[in-house]
Amino acid sequence: MPSVIRRFSSLPSDIHKFQSRADEQWNIHSKLISIHGRLRRARPQSGGDMSASPNDSTEETTAVFPPTYIVIQFSRHIRTTALVWLVDKICGKRLDGGAELLVRKQPHHDGEGLTLHVSASKIKFLEVAEELELRKRDKCGLIREFTVSQLDDFLEEGMHVDDLLTTAEKQYIVRHELENIRALKEDDQVPGYPAFRLYEGQSIVQVCLHWKLLDRMYPLHDQEALGKLGMKWYWALFRKQPFEEIRLYFGEAVALYFTFLGFYTTSLLVPMVLGFLQLFLSSESIAFFCVFNVLWVTVFLEVWKRKCSELAFTWGTIGMTSLDEPRPNYHGVMGIDVVTGRYQPQFPRWKTNARLYCASLPIVLLCMVGAFFVMLASFWAEEMIIHMKKLHGLEAGGLLVLMPSILYSAVVFIMNCYYRKLATFLTEWENHRTQSQFDRHRVTKLVLFEFVNNFMSLFYIAFYIQDMEMLKNQLTVMLIIFQAINNFQEAILPLLIKCYSKKVTKALKFDAILGNKDNEGSSYIRKRRPTLIHEKDSVIPDHIPALEPDDPRIELAIAEGEMENYEGTYDDYLEIFIQFGYVFLFSSVYPMAALWAVVNNILEIRADAFKLCCLYQRPMAKRVKDTGAWQRAFEAVGAMSIMTNCGLLCMSPQLRRLAPSLTSVEWVLLFVVLEHMLLGIRHILHLVIPDRPEWVRVALARINHQSKQALKNERTIKNRRHLFRRYNTVHASLNHND
Amino acid sequence: MPSVIRRFSSLPSDIHKFQSRADEQWNIHSKLISIHGRLRRARPQSGGDMSASPNDSTEETTAVFPPTYIVIQFSRHIRTTALVWLVDKICGKRLDGGAELLVRKQPHHDGEGLTLHVSASKIKFLEVAEELELRKRDKCGLIREFTVSQLDDFLEEGMHVDDLLTTAEKQYIVRHELENIRALKEDDQVPGYPAFRLYEGQSIVQVCLHWKLLDRMYPLHDQEALGKLGMKWYWALFRKQPFEEIRLYFGEAVALYFTFLGFYTTSLLVPMVLGFLQLFLSSESIAFFCVFNVLWVTVFLEVWKRKCSELAFTWGTIGMTSLDEPRPNYHGVMGIDVVTGRYQPQFPRWKTNARLYCASLPIVLLCMVGAFFVMLASFWAEEMIIHMKKLHGLEAGGLLVLMPSILYSAVVFIMNCYYRKLATFLTEWENHRTQSQFDRHRVTKLVLFEFVNNFMSLFYIAFYIQDMEMLKNQLTVMLIIFQAINNFQEAILPLLIKCYSKKVTKALKFDAILGNKDNEGSSYIRKRRPTLIHEKDSVIPDHIPALEPDDPRIELAIAEGEMENYEGTYDDYLEIFIQFGYVFLFSSVYPMAALWAVVNNILEIRADAFKLCCLYQRPMAKRVKDTGAWQRAFEAVGAMSIMTNCGLLCMSPQLRRLAPSLTSVEWVLLFVVLEHMLLGIRHILHLVIPDRPEWVRVALARINHQSKQALKNERTIKNRRHLFRRYNTVHASLNHND
Repeated sequence: MPSVIRRFSSLPSDIHKFQSRADEQWNIHSKLISIHGRLRRARPQSGGDMSASPNDSTEETTAVFPPTYIVIQFSRHIRTTALVWLVDKICGKRLDGGAELLVRKQPHHDGEGLTLHVSASKIKFLEVAEELELRKRDKCGLIREFTVSQLDDFLEEGMHVDDLLTTAEKQYIVRHELENIRALKEDDQVPGYPAFRLYEGQSIVQVCLHWKLLDRMYPLHDQEALGKLGMKWYWALFRKQPFEEIRLYFGEAVALYFTFLGFYTTSLLVPMVLGFLQLFLSSESIAFFCVFNVLWVTVFLEVWKRKCSELAFTWGTIGMTSLDEPRPNYHGVMGIDVVTGRYQPQFPRWKTNARLYCASLPIVLLCMVGAFFVMLASFWAEEMIIHMKKLHGLEAGGLLVLMPSILYSAVVFIMNCYYRKLATFLTEWENHRTQSQFDRHRVTKLVLFEFVNNFMSLFYIAFYIQDMEMLKNQLTVMLIIFQAINNFQEAILPLLIKCYSKKVTKALKFDAILGNKDNEGSSYIRKRRPTLIHEKDSVIPDHIPALEPDDPRIELAIAEGEMENYEGTYDDYLEIFIQFGYVFLFSSVYPMAALWAVVNNILEIRADAFKLCCLYQRPMAKRVKDTGAWQRAFEAVGAMSIMTNCGLLCMSPQLRRLAPSLTSVEWVLLFVVLEHMLLGIRHILHLVIPDRPEWVRVALARINHQSKQALKNERTIKNRRHLFRRYNTVHASLNHND
Repeated sequence: MPSVIRRFSSLPSDIHKFQSRADEQWNIHSKLISIHGRLRRARPQSGGDMSASPNDSTEETTAVFPPTYIVIQFSRHIRTTALVWLVDKICGKRLDGGAELLVRKQPHHDGEGLTLHVSASKIKFLEVAEELELRKRDKCGLIREFTVSQLDDFLEEGMHVDDLLTTAEKQYIVRHELENIRALKEDDQVPGYPAFRLYEGQSIVQVCLHWKLLDRMYPLHDQEALGKLGMKWYWALFRKQPFEEIRLYFGEAVALYFTFLGFYTTSLLVPMVLGFLQLFLSSESIAFFCVFNVLWVTVFLEVWKRKCSELAFTWGTIGMTSLDEPRPNYHGVMGIDVVTGRYQPQFPRWKTNARLYCASLPIVLLCMVGAFFVMLASFWAEEMIIHMKKLHGLEAGGLLVLMPSILYSAVVFIMNCYYRKLATFLTEWENHRTQSQFDRHRVTKLVLFEFVNNFMSLFYIAFYIQDMEMLKNQLTVMLIIFQAINNFQEAILPLLIKCYSKKVTKALKFDAILGNKDNEGSSYIRKRRPTLIHEKDSVIPDHIPALEPDDPRIELAIAEGEMENYEGTYDDYLEIFIQFGYVFLFSSVYPMAALWAVVNNILEIRADAFKLCCLYQRPMAKRVKDTGAWQRAFEAVGAMSIMTNCGLLCMSPQLRRLAPSLTSVEWVLLFVVLEHMLLGIRHILHLVIPDRPEWVRVALARINHQSKQALKNERTIKNRRHLFRRYNTVHASLNHND
């Protein structure tokens, strides 16, 4: 365990004794003999270079392999030197740049690439958990950073050491270790591929995924846990979602999304009830509801921010900053990190900012303007056609009027695809240090573009054409039909595809038993993910221990490998965001919007849950502390809703009828004043509602205080010897002067 | 040194040995024999209860007393029991609730109250410096919390231990110790005054000041340092202000004010140059300048925020939070503080918030509305008089037209006096925990009221009467005449008063030598600060050591006691704030305003400096981390300036002439759009410019990381023994099960 030794090198030497005692202890803790045995046999591996001692491997192959956390599929065409090098890196010692992980190959057939099951020893998990500063709840209920030496503090009565880390955390640890395999000074290229250059500190796995030397890398589902989760979640339509279980299984990012969706849906009940009331009241009451609605949005977002910080504190992610552990694709000159003193890639912040503001920002603005003109063009075309129809009396071309809308939808779809790639590329190029920063900047870029595509046409109808009936119809279509299609697309369509692909899998399995090569199933896989052109299939070295041929994980790995990849919460948030815009930007015109939104969201929660559990590959757990760019996006729409609603009120004929003596200018001024007052109140609410609840602030202050005290004490102890020595010297020299 | 012992009680016992070694060391450090002797004789006092051992006092009186940091004037009528009790508290042992300070009485004459010079021993200073977590720059240039045990780390080459703490810091420490003398459980009343109830944990000195048992408490000037500072500061008109020296002498709050004033004045040069340019350009360029101006305001405030955080980091105040050491007047049930674990008064936050929002806020709003109506009344009266003059052809009543304005000024002055008391009372009643919070809420209340008084009439002229010439004249008068009067009032008038009062002091001194009682001077003092009605003069106990009759400090204490009290930076900030409003709220009407502001500010800096150094009592040093409520007040005016300037532009006939074809509604809409764009840009600038510069963020993250590591290490060490013990137990029980 070199990392542990390195970390504790400043401590007295008996810490090592303690360390071995503790290791022993874990054995004792594990009462089940099978686990006991597995642990004993697995441990030597964690520190040992497996490929260097192929003699052990025969023994290893017979040992029970711990649960697979990540499956890696190698390209079938990867050159053998590169393959061996990569596997060595994965299993190798930390000092040699390895990740010290445990691997098993899947029994393979010619014509198939190597599929590797990756896991880690218990000690490795605990070690990395400490390194990553994972925060866990200790016996006293205090949430603090986990340390190996305090293991016992974190084990509640009767809790097994295996249960300390959740499967999401273990999977996160394995992935972190895989992605953290970085090129050493001597690794200037991928062996066998002189064209694939490496620089020191680059994440090797990322490079191999980029060059398609690795086909894919995905975690495996835990079928038992998944079944339990499903019963509590998507099969229980009107029960509270099991947020804690979701987090333990899918990680913080997914849990936060579902918490947000739930919170948002509950909060929507208020505007929904108000929308109902409006049906029975006079149309003059519209102004009151409108004012209430926009203030409600502000309060909702502020309260969510507070809730978010509570969750982040409980999950131990509240301390995440932009100076944390860099994400795998972050590149730069390797150097000593000023904060942690670790050896990490360094990239000056001003360069990132320069790229962001001088290149990305203008490009994004240009794209937005472009999208805006495409939108205008579609409206012009529609007008032209209507005009021509009237002029020439074309009767047959009834569908022709719909053409611009259909064409516009198609163009938006294509634009979106390309823009997404552009945004990802630009954000990657900006080279943000942490995953949160990367996500934030990518989402910001995407949201700006989506805003133009989704809302600009409504703005055009509302404020340029000023046709409220058309706006109302448009909103109804969007909120009911659009969302229904979306749910169908998300949950039911993939289910159909899955049924189809199950047949495919069965065929595949059947073929695998018969030993047939080049069957339909595997060619289907290869078609979807073309590898780079390499000469011939690679030879898979024999010294890698294999799983038993009857291991159930093999079938699971194959089945889940074919599932679609869940690309993060972006699309899900986007859906809520667009709905949020529809509901609140024009709520004074269409107060029933909230009702449709609530109906949709109740379905959406379960559809998303089902989708995530059954249709997608298990997503990689991601740690987040807040909704990031989405919070700002929602806030921006909230502010905009004040403006649009005041504008709509100002134009509403019902209200104007109330005071016919007022001139147009006076009406405009009246609503400008109302709008400014609302914006002012919004700002005051923003200032007055603290971002963090009192208890979180106090808890953080306490941790901060304790750390500061500890630093003082440490310095006291460290300096004592030094001070004694120095004082004696001073003594002598002064005496001499006397 | 009980507090040191208490603090180190968790450390091994040899720390005490070390402590005494270190004490010894300080003696050796002090090479001057006189200081050496003073230190040796002074030390026993720091821990000893002086009044309990009156035998020592004869020896003590002959010793050289360290510099006086605070002078306390007792009421001449205070009952002797109360006086003795108070002096005992000041000198008493910490365990008995005392402050362990050194005192000397001024040689007194019958009919005068006791005047006490308060200082502290060197060890006391260092001890409290550690307790207050003062941050100092160490030898490596790193700013971190001072600890006694690391004293040597903070002493640069050739630096004496006496020079480690600045006079401002020492004075701050003495004051903190005085104000931190809190009533014990047995102190249920002030002895001799059954009516003056005390509750546990109340600040005794504050109570005595409140009931006028103490006439006043003020720090003494350090004439030598003051002379040096003055040469560099108010006598050097065009040189950079010596900010670091100001901080060392007057403390952070005053230094921050002067830094802000300097920064603001420098920044004003840009609008000044633009204002000049506008004189030579066509009146249509007004819109461009206006837009530039409002954006400049935003950038200026954002950059100042960054600068503020740099200063706060360098000064070691950046970590101040609302959970810090409570201010002396904070009251509540004594209890264990959840953050620090210390025994401190506790007052639930929700009560403070309830008082703030349910009582203070409505009262303040009511006062604002009241002030607004007074303003309206003055305008109505003026109109009435003009109207009547025209109607009745009154020729003689030329001055009558000015009457409402004069009357209004008088009413505002009186309202201000009462409102100030109300605001202080309300804020005190809200019971905020820290001084910064208290100041912030008090300033917010005051600023809201001042805003109505100072700007509402201009808003009325600009947007209701819409007379731009009148507005311009009003602004000129305010900016030139008003500010000139202000400077005269601030610097020259007090100088005249001082000359007069010097004569008084001389007379007083003459009388003092002759031993005359009830002379003109002392009766003058008594007249200004009437004490509560008490029966007869108190008897001053003899056991309090006295200063030598020829000690120069006696004269200084008397002279400075007569000087006016500097009531904090509030009035100075208010002046800049009002000027800022005049310059930017209506900059499109009167672009030359910036020039007058710059001229005034250059004078203002030196006048304020002179005032502070020569005319006022030395202010108590106050630690701040930012400009608090002022930052928000300036930001609010910045946002408002966008609205007012867009409004003024919209009304300007020059601009309207540019596009005569536009209707009124279109003009209004055009400017609403412009205003929203500017508000949007302002918000984006606010988001994009980080509040803290990169280097501060990194430095804070590093400190945070180090503390967290230290906490981990500490826990590791602490838990080791515990773990060993527990593991053995578990071992045994498991073996038993086997």
